[in-house]
Amino acid sequence: MSEPPGVEIERKFLPARLPDAVAAGERLEQGYLAVAPDGTEVRIRRRAGRSTLTVKSGPAHVRVEEELEIDDRRFEALWVLTEGRRIAKSRHLVPLDGGLTAEVDVYAEALDGLLTAEVEFPSASASEAFAPPDWLGPEATGDARYANQSLALHGAP
Amino acid sequence: MSEPPGVEIERKFLPARLPDAVAAGERLEQGYLAVAPDGTEVRIRRRAGRSTLTVKSGPAHVRVEEELEIDDRRFEALWVLTEGRRIAKSRHLVPLDGGLTAEVDVYAEALDGLLTAEVEFPSASASEAFAPPDWLGPEATGDARYANQSLALHGAP
Repeated sequence: MSEPPGVEIERKFLPARLPDAVAAGERLEQGYLAVAPDGTEVRIRRRAGRSTLTVKSGPAHVRVEEELEIDDRRFEALWVLTEGRRIAKSRHLVPLDGGLTAEVDVYAEALDGLLTAEVEFPSASASEAFAPPDWLGPEATGDARYANQSLALHGAP
Repeated sequence: MSEPPGVEIERKFLPARLPDAVAAGERLEQGYLAVAPDGTEVRIRRRAGRSTLTVKSGPAHVRVEEELEIDDRRFEALWVLTEGRRIAKSRHLVPLDGGLTAEVDVYAEALDGLLTAEVEFPSASASEAFAPPDWLGPEATGDARYANQSLALHGAP
């Protein structure tokens, strides 16, 4: 996940479709219970059979992120409260030249049709030198409208 | 606690001060991490050495309330994120005639000077028959401005 980027060096792209012969992805569901005006967010996520509740600080605070594991019963009970503030997607790992990997998220349900791809680099110079293959599409690095919270609350740009 | 009342039959009052000879109260601190537009709230609370994170549905949903125990380290980390959305109070149990009890909350810090008192009744008829002693002051039953969430987010009315 890329939001907020922290010390990771990443670039984000908007592919029109998955490349051919990509393996089936891992399903991820995430819903926001509440987001405060200062950006503090509380979300729940289910991925690979594991459910968590995470509290993250907004940009106004020193970075805080606390993740609590929750059981299936709690996840189901709380999921009801995230209606209208959800994203569902499957994540596909696509190998690129130079040992790099694109994490391609294919959104479903309300965001059906949206794809994003993130490439993480070992250094700033590697990031600058990266020549994206055509299928990655237009670049959206730093565009806050493609952050999970924004997609969940406001939909696709 | 009275918000939301659920099936409890309660009346709320606004005492000007505690009656004489009331024992020391129990300290309670509560802060809101985030509240959604639909009223879904996520709060943390510390009381009697025990800390919890609670998610509660707002009025638009079927009632959901999930409480997760959190340790001191997590409480302290999350407390930072509740700045400007907190209440601190001490609760005093004051015996009344007829075997009833007033739970008197004496607010501190930003709400210093505010007192609220709640009396719970075994039946609607007992509630209607109740003749409040003078010290309980004006009645505020059903006044949403005195709910914890409102006091934490918007201050005293």
